[in-house]
Amino acid sequence: MHSMVLLIQCPDQPGIVAKISDFIFKRNGNVTDSSQHSTGLDGGRFFMRVEFNPVDGDTNVDVLKQALGSLMIELNATWNLHSSEELPRMALAVSKFDHCLVDLLYRVRSGEIRAEIPLIVSNHTDVKHHADTYNVPFVHLPVTKETKGEQERQFIETVVGKSDFLVLARYMQILSQEFLDGYSKPVINIHHSFLPSFKGANPHRQAFDRGVKLIGASAHYATTDLDEGPIIEQVVDRVTHRDTVESLRNKGRSLEQQALGRAVKAHIEHRVIRYENKTIVFE
Amino acid sequence: MHSMVLLIQCPDQPGIVAKISDFIFKRNGNVTDSSQHSTGLDGGRFFMRVEFNPVDGDTNVDVLKQALGSLMIELNATWNLHSSEELPRMALAVSKFDHCLVDLLYRVRSGEIRAEIPLIVSNHTDVKHHADTYNVPFVHLPVTKETKGEQERQFIETVVGKSDFLVLARYMQILSQEFLDGYSKPVINIHHSFLPSFKGANPHRQAFDRGVKLIGASAHYATTDLDEGPIIEQVVDRVTHRDTVESLRNKGRSLEQQALGRAVKAHIEHRVIRYENKTIVFE
Amino acid sequence: MHSMVLLIQCPDQPGIVAKISDFIFKRNGNVTDSSQHSTGLDGGRFFMRVEFNPVDGDTNVDVLKQALGSLMIELNATWNLHSSEELPRMALAVSKFDHCLVDLLYRVRSGEIRAEIPLIVSNHTDVKHHADTYNVPFVHLPVTKETKGEQERQFIETVVGKSDFLVLARYMQILSQEFLDGYSKPVINIHHSFLPSFKGANPHRQAFDRGVKLIGASAHYATTDLDEGPIIEQVVDRVTHRDTVESLRNKGRSLEQQALGRAVKAHIEHRVIRYENKTIVFE
Amino acid sequence: MHSMVLLIQCPDQPGIVAKISDFIFKRNGNVTDSSQHSTGLDGGRFFMRVEFNPVDGDTNVDVLKQALGSLMIELNATWNLHSSEELPRMALAVSKFDHCLVDLLYRVRSGEIRAEIPLIVSNHTDVKHHADTYNVPFVHLPVTKETKGEQERQFIETVVGKSDFLVLARYMQILSQEFLDGYSKPVINIHHSFLPSFKGANPHRQAFDRGVKLIGASAHYATTDLDEGPIIEQVVDRVTHRDTVESLRNKGRSLEQQALGRAVKAHIEHRVIRYENKTIVFE
Repeated sequence: MHSMVLLIQCPDQPGIVAKISDFIFKRNGNVTDSSQHSTGLDGGRFFMRVEFNPVDGDTNVDVLKQALGSLMIELNATWNLHSSEELPRMALAVSKFDHCLVDLLYRVRSGEIRAEIPLIVSNHTDVKHHADTYNVPFVHLPVTKETKGEQERQFIETVVGKSDFLVLARYMQILSQEFLDGYSKPVINIHHSFLPSFKGANPHRQAFDRGVKLIGASAHYATTDLDEGPIIEQVVDRVTHRDTVESLRNKGRSLEQQALGRAVKAHIEHRVIRYENKTIVFE
Repeated sequence: MHSMVLLIQCPDQPGIVAKISDFIFKRNGNVTDSSQHSTGLDGGRFFMRVEFNPVDGDTNVDVLKQALGSLMIELNATWNLHSSEELPRMALAVSKFDHCLVDLLYRVRSGEIRAEIPLIVSNHTDVKHHADTYNVPFVHLPVTKETKGEQERQFIETVVGKSDFLVLARYMQILSQEFLDGYSKPVINIHHSFLPSFKGANPHRQAFDRGVKLIGASAHYATTDLDEGPIIEQVVDRVTHRDTVESLRNKGRSLEQQALGRAVKAHIEHRVIRYENKTIVFE
Repeated sequence: MHSMVLLIQCPDQPGIVAKISDFIFKRNGNVTDSSQHSTGLDGGRFFMRVEFNPVDGDTNVDVLKQALGSLMIELNATWNLHSSEELPRMALAVSKFDHCLVDLLYRVRSGEIRAEIPLIVSNHTDVKHHADTYNVPFVHLPVTKETKGEQERQFIETVVGKSDFLVLARYMQILSQEFLDGYSKPVINIHHSFLPSFKGANPHRQAFDRGVKLIGASAHYATTDLDEGPIIEQVVDRVTHRDTVESLRNKGRSLEQQALGRAVKAHIEHRVIRYENKTIVFE
Repeated sequence: MHSMVLLIQCPDQPGIVAKISDFIFKRNGNVTDSSQHSTGLDGGRFFMRVEFNPVDGDTNVDVLKQALGSLMIELNATWNLHSSEELPRMALAVSKFDHCLVDLLYRVRSGEIRAEIPLIVSNHTDVKHHADTYNVPFVHLPVTKETKGEQERQFIETVVGKSDFLVLARYMQILSQEFLDGYSKPVINIHHSFLPSFKGANPHRQAFDRGVKLIGASAHYATTDLDEGPIIEQVVDRVTHRDTVESLRNKGRSLEQQALGRAVKAHIEHRVIRYENKTIVFE
């Protein structure tokens, strides 16, 4: 059935839920799921996700958006409205490690993740055959220290009009502020450690050296502050003294697939709101 | 701050959320948290938990209950309203194993579980010293096959007026339909297995014999159908071939404490709604 | 480096470890890893896994096997010796669900699972394209109620000489005693529930109806007693009242991949010993 | 039954297992459990735990130790031999938070942890009543910035002769190098975060501010490098945006009990070997 999701955040004040649910009810919508969160009334912030069926009311997103406009201004809200008829367009960027790529491709094909993949970008050609197998356009954008600025400009041009968000599925290049500003849409990254532990390069070697008893993976929104962006999902697995850096990498692959898969699914279902350096992830 | 929780279930229909939030808003209440769940519009069922602060409106539960009455009748709802000023009264029943008892006593004293413990009932006297340590009245109600009916009648009389719910914290007697009807309030039980595996007696021996690689514990509402009641919480832990029935019991103790502790906390915070043989547990 | 694994089980008695390690030492072998387990001296059973490098001694498996023979007879042992130079041959059987298949193919290609895949057998043709992508021979063996006996005979003929063990990666046919006897090598199955809960058909529907708070997957050796064989690995994930049968299936896919992946890895590294209806899985 | 555990580490070389198991066999001992680990032959290190029953041989630890001496010198080993007849003496240090203390007291009383608790030391008197309940001597050693040196000297004097190891069960004072040298026996600490994340003060506040999706607890051997000692055990639990610093503390209490309980149990069963800044924890 056709459904819509309203995602909003605004300064908290009494009556927000009443106003929004009244708005939906008056347009013959039926709320099927709603969640909210508040950091408190006095200066706090309010977050809400409402999923509803436009029973026999307006089913056009643009019409509804316009109608919502004045209420949203009144609430001083940052908001968006999504229709289940829009299939989110997810661009993928990968370097050489392909485990997150194949996992996302599989989850999309199986229908678990409802998205369209307009293209795969890579600074290498190692994973091109996966793009071919799944009939997804593949764009090779090699990069060197010298060409980084130019490559990022091409990267933006390649993805910005064709995608609603970008997933760095083990893309081993640090994106500049210019890239994030130029692309301006959400970018999800997977880091192969339990953040904030083991930021930066080779976290499995760092985990091995420290002798931890659990390793993890963290999916987060990319910011210019490397590995410091808002965390969406984290998972862990037990390790022992028998594990080598190599076996940590093997266990890590599965963790990265799980963390990234869940984060992408939550993002696509419009369950995630960013606020400061954190995320609200509605179940 | 003073807050209230409304917990309702009713046939689903458009506008429920709007009506409830409007009711709260008109009485100057501010919704601080709300969650809902629906099994669908056509013949489906709607479940909701709303937590709100009566800003400067009615703060009396009974007044609000009366005011809510006609809306609840209109919605054909099963519902209740709880005030944070009421401290839920949790009666405890135990036989000889005391690990769940001491854990609950500790969680209450530490403030993690906000409840009052009016009394501890036991068919033995082994755990009486814990009652003494925590200054909780202890009632010894020994039971034999012959005296079971009479003991249950005494049990009901002992707890029904003094408690809002009863926790079987390893009470090793099966309660009859007469008991459950007579007490008529929620009864939470802890079963030392991952239900529906290993129902009945000695689940750790059963788990050992079957050679499972994980063991669990399940907290559920007690029904006359032994170990078949609505599950509230389940937890598991890894085991290996090195584990004996004895070591499974040791690991199990910790699992039982966790599962029961979380279930009781969810129940006390009015996060659990029973429906048929399942539970909705709002986060 | 070339290494060997000795896997044995025998009646327990004093001195077994001394005899075996002395044997290896005298042949200039160096034990790099060893684990053992005993169910007790008096009538109990002894299990051991020894991994060693034949420093400059016998590197031929057959020569070593012959040399070990008399000691093994003395110990009344069931045993086997494996060389790291042998790449285990893993035949795969699949019906239509391909998530376990693609995961195993990926793990083998990535080197995480060190095995050769001689062929994929299926009673359907839906997954043939995966076989083609990975250049693995694909054998289509359709089956009906009437042709089951004949199909199983063909199945055995197809895999018995070409494989060291068989993995049922969501092969939705029950194998008969005749098949298991005829094939006579280990058969690993993945069941999409936390055994012994929800045996048989449609475990996710059963889990949904029971309202459990965790779902699981179990990898086990197949026996004629359906879903009753020795369990090798089990994993679980949390679910809530929001989960549908469909979303349980989605979560289940990832669990099945993990449980089967770990079980196959343990089997291939010769870490698993079967005994009665259980497994010893050495870390 | 009377059993013994030999725990050794030494430079790796061929034949170590053979020599040790032969030694035990010749003295009529029966190995019931043994595990080993090696970081490689060339310059690598060898670790072993052997549990055995002295069938009708030497049952005196000191006699056996003497007998083992020359072999241990030959292997250049660091080693120890423990008899199941010795009950390890565990001194406890606590400040005000009592959840780890009550959990350890309970596990000892229930027999899950086989140890003797000779005394509880605290820089406060808040937990004295637990000591009284369990009939354990309580020593109050208040400390200020000025008296720290003197207090530590008293602390050492109080525990060194009466204990085999010391557990800091939320003792909120940093121990100096002088203390660790003076006491010279193992000191186990519990840190309320998933190390190496959130070292230092108030890790739950740090975790809240960073917006992690899992929190943890880590039990480790104390070194002068704060929160940097060899990790023995780590556990985690999921958290959400709904969690406050307060609720993280509540969830953290249970995690700390679990991590510390398991670490102490492993230490007492002589399953842990320290090497550089890591631990080998034999299952």
